Amino acid sequence: MSASPLLEQLIESLRVLPGVGQKTAQRMAYHLLERARDGGKRLSKALDDAMREIGHCELCRDFSEKPQCPICASASRDASLLCAVESPSDLLAIEQATGYRGRYFVLQGRLSPLDGIGPEELGLDQLEDRLSEGEVSEMIIATNPTVEGEATAHFLSQMARRHGVKPTRLAHGVPLGGELEYVDRSTIAHAFSSRRAVE
Amino acid sequence: MSASPLLEQLIESLRVLPGVGQKTAQRMAYHLLERARDGGKRLSKALDDAMREIGHCELCRDFSEKPQCPICASASRDASLLCAVESPSDLLAIEQATGYRGRYFVLQGRLSPLDGIGPEELGLDQLEDRLSEGEVSEMIIATNPTVEGEATAHFLSQMARRHGVKPTRLAHGVPLGGELEYVDRSTIAHAFSSRRAVE
Repeated sequence: MSASPLLEQLIESLRVLPGVGQKTAQRMAYHLLERARDGGKRLSKALDDAMREIGHCELCRDFSEKPQCPICASASRDASLLCAVESPSDLLAIEQATGYRGRYFVLQGRLSPLDGIGPEELGLDQLEDRLSEGEVSEMIIATNPTVEGEATAHFLSQMARRHGVKPTRLAHGVPLGGELEYVDRSTIAHAFSSRRAVE
Repeated sequence: MSASPLLEQLIESLRVLPGVGQKTAQRMAYHLLERARDGGKRLSKALDDAMREIGHCELCRDFSEKPQCPICASASRDASLLCAVESPSDLLAIEQATGYRGRYFVLQGRLSPLDGIGPEELGLDQLEDRLSEGEVSEMIIATNPTVEGEATAHFLSQMARRHGVKPTRLAHGVPLGGELEYVDRSTIAHAFSSRRAVE
């Protein structure tokens, strides 16, 4: 029994966070009460605002509180490049790692017929409309290198070709800083067969 | 750059939680937005309620949204037993592990002169008043077995004796399920010298 029903409720509610169990939730609740009440109030406000206001950009389907996200609304982005990603976190990873100045399309998933996720769920009719407008010349397909991600990539590359758009895919190979000894066999096989001439 | 200032703000605010860095905060925010918006709203409400309403019990100093916490207010608790703990989480650990039916006193810290934590900060005058009322016959001192916790325990046991209250301390020894090989030397030394006759 905890001394406070509100505390009990806070601990229970914190468990909605991924990877947070009973013990971690307790530790978080006590930490906030003992040392970070202002931070806790700010978090409450930020959560409420975000859950209430954030929807999807009407063009790229990324999270956005406005009808169009800043990337789609920006005139300085190259409209001839379109990068298709599975999720907003993949988009963020590419934004943070690269100097890419084109636009995005967020599938919010991958083709997975067994889970009932088909072309409609991924907004592929919307993507097809966009490709048919003729502004896009290259579609960078950045789905994950999983079975379903590859199937989605195959589907997307066929769609791109139908509209005269050049499909490209992220290179596979040995990660930087990785040691060959610890890299999985299929990645090594792929990197070996895709070897490049040293200039 | 993230696509949404509100999302940015949510990620930043989540970092107030202990052990949550930038990457984990991102994962949490995307999880809430993609799969748990209702849970996120509930968490926002629970945080706001807790940060605003939870204060300290006037008797035991545990967290409570009422002037007296349920344990202090309960008539079925034995008023002759008082257990002094450092923090509300220690109280919770004892409540969950034992069948203890006495009352508590939460120090909200331990004596630490170098950090400016003296008897006033721990509410020890309030504790002394309580001991002088004559209702308590045994004080179980459950401070942590650290240098500062032991110093606090020594201070508390002298206070108890001044008021004719019997001070007791949790037993030290080898933890259940522990293997001797992995138990630290001072614990083994303590357990060895405190060995008990087998009945």
